[in-house]
Amino acid sequence: MEFTKMHGLGNSYIYINLFKEHLPEERLAETAVWLADPNRGIGSDGMILIGPSTSCAIKMRIFNNDGSEAKNCGNGLRCVAKYSYEHGLVHEKAFSIETLGGPVFATVEVDEEGRVGAVAINMGQPRLTRQAIPIIGEGDKPVVGEKLEANGETVQVTAVSMGNPHAVMFVEQIEKAPVESLGPVIEKHSAFPDWVNAEWVEVVSETELHFRVWERGSGITQACGTGACAAVVASVLNGYAKQGVPVTVHLLGGDLTIVWQENGDVLMRGPAEYICTGNVFL
Amino acid sequence: MEFTKMHGLGNSYIYINLFKEHLPEERLAETAVWLADPNRGIGSDGMILIGPSTSCAIKMRIFNNDGSEAKNCGNGLRCVAKYSYEHGLVHEKAFSIETLGGPVFATVEVDEEGRVGAVAINMGQPRLTRQAIPIIGEGDKPVVGEKLEANGETVQVTAVSMGNPHAVMFVEQIEKAPVESLGPVIEKHSAFPDWVNAEWVEVVSETELHFRVWERGSGITQACGTGACAAVVASVLNGYAKQGVPVTVHLLGGDLTIVWQENGDVLMRGPAEYICTGNVFL
Repeated sequence: MEFTKMHGLGNSYIYINLFKEHLPEERLAETAVWLADPNRGIGSDGMILIGPSTSCAIKMRIFNNDGSEAKNCGNGLRCVAKYSYEHGLVHEKAFSIETLGGPVFATVEVDEEGRVGAVAINMGQPRLTRQAIPIIGEGDKPVVGEKLEANGETVQVTAVSMGNPHAVMFVEQIEKAPVESLGPVIEKHSAFPDWVNAEWVEVVSETELHFRVWERGSGITQACGTGACAAVVASVLNGYAKQGVPVTVHLLGGDLTIVWQENGDVLMRGPAEYICTGNVFL
Repeated sequence: MEFTKMHGLGNSYIYINLFKEHLPEERLAETAVWLADPNRGIGSDGMILIGPSTSCAIKMRIFNNDGSEAKNCGNGLRCVAKYSYEHGLVHEKAFSIETLGGPVFATVEVDEEGRVGAVAINMGQPRLTRQAIPIIGEGDKPVVGEKLEANGETVQVTAVSMGNPHAVMFVEQIEKAPVESLGPVIEKHSAFPDWVNAEWVEVVSETELHFRVWERGSGITQACGTGACAAVVASVLNGYAKQGVPVTVHLLGGDLTIVWQENGDVLMRGPAEYICTGNVFL
């Protein structure tokens, strides 16, 4: 079976082109687990299938390294967009991608040799009500700087849903962010019925943030696209950034440029990279 | 650059064929680190180069995932033997492989379709003197069932060098072997000036052992070829197995068949598997 391995900011997947390959539905989970295993498979965060869509230009399905199917993945979307454009699966530079979380719109930036550099993904509108995030408590107002007790400390969280829940905390120095000690505590804090991604942000300026994340279910990771979007939305809500003005977010794995547009959509722009391509022995 | 990923009992490397590819010496370490990285590279325990030898049929060089060069690797040797035979780099079924630790002799078992199933590697003679292992203390006799204090407990170790040092301990039930708790304590015990690989063995019969390992520098791993050899030598020294009679060793990653031959050499036989082959984007 032919495969391509790609990464976005160190978030790597094995990509299978379903226009060429056939994988039976009942073997998807075990194939993802095997491909992701660095000892007996290739090694990655999971498997992404690229195939035909009846509602969008292209369809992606994401499988985590435990075989479960994920709704969406910002870093994976950028790779799917680059792959689809460069392999002629789509012919426009702006196109829609069907995901389990709904349709997503991608725009590829193409150089003179026809290669895709950066990819911009429209991540849709943030949801800010307590019910949408979800976070316990009353009222319909955005949750901005709300005090929570965690490990005997008081932290102030701004809560944002980008389809998944985020708790954003601002710190003076990103190096001192208590990601390892407080991450797992915030993640499963009783205020968040569905648990939460915990993010720390240092504001450098209106157009630059440092960002660290404790991902729900994964712990510390190199990059979290929806988390970086949530960080920019939270920065605007707290007056540290402006709607309509792009912000560079420095993640452990690299940089993303994010803008919370005036129309309410969040646009995320960043790199997508090939690692290798070849055949696995099934 | 073309690559092949293979594993022996879950111990995986990226194999580069130097008859086809050129890698400058000054870039070997960084290439190994990158290839082994599951986030931005392929993901493996390291990189193995297969190239021409002036003294043997073929030459292998092993680089760990931290970029350091290793002397030898039993699981890697079996993969090198399979790759070399199936790719026509050698034409005999028994041949020599040059390694940093000295020449090694391999024998491949070939099926009707010309494919290599199991590979047997002559791992040479065990060294049993205190100085050769090394383990502190006086005298020239093999160290068999010597008492050591570790974490307030007394353990009995049989010490064997297979080029690298091993401390073998026998237990009634392999499931109860204190690999995680005592492994790191034995590994750096003051009795072993160069540290040691700590191994626990349950004797099922004269021809069958269960085996668990805490590898020096790596912790718990799925398989350790030299450790399995040391376990069989230690079993013979303790009267649990016989010289000249093959023993099946069950490791976490699978089985090896090992015989301490009458001539003093230790022969290790086991599988080697392809995972994938392709091209990396350098």
